[in-house]
Amino acid sequence: MKMENVFRMKRGTSKLKAVPVLVLCFLLLTSQLTAQQATWIWYPGDFEISLANKVQNRRTERGTFFPVFWKMDNHYVLIDFHKVFDVPHKENVDIYVEGEYNVKLDGKPFEGSPRRISVPAGRHKINIKVFNQANVPAIYVRGKAIVSDSSWLVTFEDKEWIDETGKTSDISATKWLKAGFWNFNSHLQLPSQFTLPTRRQAAVSTVRGNRSMLVDFGKETLGFIRLHGLKGKGKLSVYYGESKEEALSPEHCEALDRVEVGNPARKDQTMKLSKAFRFVNVEYDGSISLDSVSMLYEYADVRQRGSFSCNDAGINRIYDVAKYTFELNTREFFIDGIKRDRWVWSGDAYQSYLMNYYLYFDKETVTRTMYALRGKDPVTGHINTIMDYTFYWFLGIYDYYLYTGDKNYILQNYDRMKTLMDYVVARRNKDGFMEWMPGDWIFIDWAAGLSKKGEVSFEQLLLARSLETMALCANMVNDKEGLSTYSALSEDLRRKIFQVYWSDQKKALVHSRVDGRQTENVTRYANMFAIFFDYFDQQQKQTVKTSVLLNDSIQKITTPYMRFYELEALCAMGEQSYVLKEMKDYWGGMLKLGATSFWEEYNPAKKGTEHYAMYGRKFGKSLCHAWGASPLYLLGKHYLGVKPTAPGYSAYTVEPNLGGLQWMQGKVPTPGGDIELYVSQEQVKIKGSTGAGTIKMRSSIPPVGKNVVAVVKGNGLYEIEVKPGIEYIINYKAE
Amino acid sequence: MKMENVFRMKRGTSKLKAVPVLVLCFLLLTSQLTAQQATWIWYPGDFEISLANKVQNRRTERGTFFPVFWKMDNHYVLIDFHKVFDVPHKENVDIYVEGEYNVKLDGKPFEGSPRRISVPAGRHKINIKVFNQANVPAIYVRGKAIVSDSSWLVTFEDKEWIDETGKTSDISATKWLKAGFWNFNSHLQLPSQFTLPTRRQAAVSTVRGNRSMLVDFGKETLGFIRLHGLKGKGKLSVYYGESKEEALSPEHCEALDRVEVGNPARKDQTMKLSKAFRFVNVEYDGSISLDSVSMLYEYADVRQRGSFSCNDAGINRIYDVAKYTFELNTREFFIDGIKRDRWVWSGDAYQSYLMNYYLYFDKETVTRTMYALRGKDPVTGHINTIMDYTFYWFLGIYDYYLYTGDKNYILQNYDRMKTLMDYVVARRNKDGFMEWMPGDWIFIDWAAGLSKKGEVSFEQLLLARSLETMALCANMVNDKEGLSTYSALSEDLRRKIFQVYWSDQKKALVHSRVDGRQTENVTRYANMFAIFFDYFDQQQKQTVKTSVLLNDSIQKITTPYMRFYELEALCAMGEQSYVLKEMKDYWGGMLKLGATSFWEEYNPAKKGTEHYAMYGRKFGKSLCHAWGASPLYLLGKHYLGVKPTAPGYSAYTVEPNLGGLQWMQGKVPTPGGDIELYVSQEQVKIKGSTGAGTIKMRSSIPPVGKNVVAVVKGNGLYEIEVKPGIEYIINYKAE
Repeated sequence: MKMENVFRMKRGTSKLKAVPVLVLCFLLLTSQLTAQQATWIWYPGDFEISLANKVQNRRTERGTFFPVFWKMDNHYVLIDFHKVFDVPHKENVDIYVEGEYNVKLDGKPFEGSPRRISVPAGRHKINIKVFNQANVPAIYVRGKAIVSDSSWLVTFEDKEWIDETGKTSDISATKWLKAGFWNFNSHLQLPSQFTLPTRRQAAVSTVRGNRSMLVDFGKETLGFIRLHGLKGKGKLSVYYGESKEEALSPEHCEALDRVEVGNPARKDQTMKLSKAFRFVNVEYDGSISLDSVSMLYEYADVRQRGSFSCNDAGINRIYDVAKYTFELNTREFFIDGIKRDRWVWSGDAYQSYLMNYYLYFDKETVTRTMYALRGKDPVTGHINTIMDYTFYWFLGIYDYYLYTGDKNYILQNYDRMKTLMDYVVARRNKDGFMEWMPGDWIFIDWAAGLSKKGEVSFEQLLLARSLETMALCANMVNDKEGLSTYSALSEDLRRKIFQVYWSDQKKALVHSRVDGRQTENVTRYANMFAIFFDYFDQQQKQTVKTSVLLNDSIQKITTPYMRFYELEALCAMGEQSYVLKEMKDYWGGMLKLGATSFWEEYNPAKKGTEHYAMYGRKFGKSLCHAWGASPLYLLGKHYLGVKPTAPGYSAYTVEPNLGGLQWMQGKVPTPGGDIELYVSQEQVKIKGSTGAGTIKMRSSIPPVGKNVVAVVKGNGLYEIEVKPGIEYIINYKAE
Repeated sequence: MKMENVFRMKRGTSKLKAVPVLVLCFLLLTSQLTAQQATWIWYPGDFEISLANKVQNRRTERGTFFPVFWKMDNHYVLIDFHKVFDVPHKENVDIYVEGEYNVKLDGKPFEGSPRRISVPAGRHKINIKVFNQANVPAIYVRGKAIVSDSSWLVTFEDKEWIDETGKTSDISATKWLKAGFWNFNSHLQLPSQFTLPTRRQAAVSTVRGNRSMLVDFGKETLGFIRLHGLKGKGKLSVYYGESKEEALSPEHCEALDRVEVGNPARKDQTMKLSKAFRFVNVEYDGSISLDSVSMLYEYADVRQRGSFSCNDAGINRIYDVAKYTFELNTREFFIDGIKRDRWVWSGDAYQSYLMNYYLYFDKETVTRTMYALRGKDPVTGHINTIMDYTFYWFLGIYDYYLYTGDKNYILQNYDRMKTLMDYVVARRNKDGFMEWMPGDWIFIDWAAGLSKKGEVSFEQLLLARSLETMALCANMVNDKEGLSTYSALSEDLRRKIFQVYWSDQKKALVHSRVDGRQTENVTRYANMFAIFFDYFDQQQKQTVKTSVLLNDSIQKITTPYMRFYELEALCAMGEQSYVLKEMKDYWGGMLKLGATSFWEEYNPAKKGTEHYAMYGRKFGKSLCHAWGASPLYLLGKHYLGVKPTAPGYSAYTVEPNLGGLQWMQGKVPTPGGDIELYVSQEQVKIKGSTGAGTIKMRSSIPPVGKNVVAVVKGNGLYEIEVKPGIEYIINYKAE
């Protein structure tokens, strides 16, 4: 996460040189093949924003429509698509469009809106202009040479006109971006019709009452309830519960459906909206009868690539439940939790990106989520209205580049990054700090009595990191003015953070400054971020570990959300053994209470159904929250120890840390294949991906093995180069 | 048009004091009644922008979809509506919504999306939140006390949330505007379904060919062609012509329809899109037969209030054809011309606003057009991509306030005015002048060889006027910083305009400065605007009249568009006699050529079908262009001589000028009724509207008559107060 280094490496010697020529050829060939696959395309971000509107507006609370409370953006309704092609032979080109459209060849329009055009051999420019108010303007073009794909250029204002002499005037001001796309590779797969796939799933048990039925699906799940053999006349209600108690509480359950039944004959009926539940309680009146209840499980079609197992069954179970928790929350977007909001929350999503890099490595769900969160200009509020959530968006952008190497996304989004940062910078107070302003929500964490007054140190840290990200991206897109501005701002802010918040007495960054004075309050937040942001020097880190992280008198964290960062900070300082124990206590604690997925919040001090309450509501808590799945990330990054050190894993390091385990094994996905790893006290087996890998290990003996060339770094530390496509078996002795 | 004066009067003594108490009571009563009429409401501007998207995307060119080439905006998809009501007795409230929605009473949601709610007596806040991606979120609420109208508040981001303690946090940052509305007063009149009304119209003559039919509707018109008794199988084409030549030119006509016919029995068929034409030429093949052709005339439901007639039949004919030209171009919006673009062009619309104030006084068509033109933030280009057209938008705003007194519109739009002006100000060059930048179109006028190089004086004049408008509006909304900024900018610019462009040698403002040097070129544009902007002093005006306006060696204007301002400038200097002759020559010239509506451009030097060509196309010219209708404005404002001097005609002057006519009579509409006027050389009869009127007249004898109290201003000039509701008959003797 030391971004400056990563960046310098990228700008310095090209790491790609290390990639064998054969692999490069393969990559080029693939991209060539991909280029000839026709796919639906649109203005980048528009499908994503439009889909997010649909998804987020599916939230209901006890049957009532419950939309977001911030600005929802919309797609551009009028889009021009174009590309210049070299056409070897005359060809017919089929054109499919979502919207009204015209087609021009070399600037000359065809009459009407042709479904098929004939294009003669030669170099030709094809333009398709589409209007669609209800859905995202999108095209699918399929000829032999001429196909629609991400190499087409798009704009929402072509500023094209003819002057009085009939000439087309200068259009150099037009901003063309590359087309957005996903995987709609058939003309029949209309982007506007996209829905997640489903599959049938039966109940595990059913308890029949007089005019009711309590159905248990065995574990937390999400989908469309199906009522089988529904007959008669009357009213039927479906009460959903993540717990049995919730399903049996018509007055307090968070989700419900009402059905007016009037079926002379038996009929199956599927609920309109998918819901989260383990239990459903169906109650009905009148002459209604019902045979059984099943469901359609609704899921995202992503592929599990990462894995982890070890000798400790408890950790394996935690990993599996984390995986299932993450599966449920990985949908059209990375959402917060499946029961309640099902919204795209930036702080929650940021953690999901990181987990995703160690489980699915599904780029599209990341970019979709980031597009949806950012929305469009003008910026009229923080992302999700939350100050910290705006900053996490910036952090997510850079991580995305680091893990995937997808520079195109930065290029396509730099303007949106800039205008969002303009908004932030304009809201600093006279001392250059972020402070609450009307309309802002300072979230940080769900924690009792957490002060948001004055200038909170945590927010300044996130801003500093966001400014660094802006500087890095400015450099990448050659925005020299931006580079100098953002660099100066971030350096200045980092200096001020330490001047203002560091307390020699507390040996920590304090929580805030109010009315120009340091408060007495020390919380974990700023301190743990300063560790893995590398803002502390080595001595400060060690000090803070004792004075804050391992200090029981500092307010405890009760959400997996902030436990993520707390444990990450400890891992970054080599405290894997401690963290393993914490993991078993905390996540293991939820499992002991019967959790089948991880929760929004967990406080071991609470008892029984107290665990289900939150927000002043009996069943307000989400029992399946994405941020509960962080062991996926911790185990992949800090135990298997795999992380990219140059964009897209063109270089990466592996620093395994058993943390007290006897052995562990797993896979970490990268753009160039999976890194496979087995680690015990005496042996490490590794097969790398296409990038230039380096394994770093501590050993009391010099590591040896086939192909192993260990470089001694001193102090028992060794580095071994890991080349692509070669399996290494390294014998060593863990210190 | 001397805005500073108008503004000062408004801020000084309230002109409303002059309005009799009875009238005021009537006005209050009316607004009370209006308040209880339920009507569909939406976010202000959203219906208008959405409708403009539909209308402007109906353009076709020879059957091909032809959309605009600038950014099209969209409605906000998620809107919160609310109002606090005092409910005297418990009542049922019916709720109709375009979109998905929820309803809250005093913050508590009803289950589902109720169609009817019951509200107990007392003070209650009702919120309705609506999501609609395809159409504008809109509501219609009808109870006894609780009805939806423009007093509801709306926002696109309520930033409402509950914190961890369950309290609703501060929402003071939320920007609430008053709801937008029009005249959808029944729950069945869905805003999304709005279309213009139509009525049947028969052809005047039909000439049958072998497999064709040439139909003449007698004059320029617009609507849906209907084919009666269509039978058989084959292809049919409808070629439209504003001239017979165009209809008879399948290769070059601008508009056409293609129909695949497959009717075993006679059937009537109506074309999908309305078109402009006088002639249609229907050609068909196969076994097709056709009985006859008629049309559905499509029109805007506005009421003619203004009128003008005089002793000169030629002028009366010009007025009538101008009226018909304007009727055809007054549609969902004020459009440019009915044949080709049918787009909302700011420069064209600006003139339509002014004509409208003297014919329909239809406020809604003005505000709809201004909303549509402005669109939404972010501003990414000039309005219609044209620099001058951005400025006309500002000018239109102020005129709207001056003529209607609708301060609410300024309040609702001030933010959009500011951000548009931010865009402009940021595009000035280092000397503070507007100069071409990539993406800009500097239009000015269709005129051969007109230079757009360097800093064109005309654009600077319009900017100065726009900045003045901003200063006035800033004052109105109490934006002190804006007032001081815009005042300083406009004063500075006006000073620089004279420093840089005035030439003592040319006795005029020159056309431009290129590379820091005044050019030799003098054109009419900047000079005529400086006259009626009152930027010239009296001496300069007289000088420029001779050196430019009446100087035949200065390039002539060939569009009614710029003739509008040229003649206005001459009228402003009392040259009504000259202008009357010009009107008869120029507009009369078109009538002599058989025009049934006024044209986009008219150059008397051209011959025969040359008149139909433009843009390098045989029939490219529009023969029915809104800007051709300017006599409506000139005759009302500069001959009848009626104009507001305080917002909404709370004060106005009447300065009749016969310009050589023996007599004239007419009506000028105002918010408080029509001003009726008869003027001859010896007598003026006037009945005023609700405002405080002053008639100014030159007479060689002291004017006398019933109720007439003339104040001598010296030099043969007299002023007579005109009180509402009283008819004055003033006997005088024209000088």
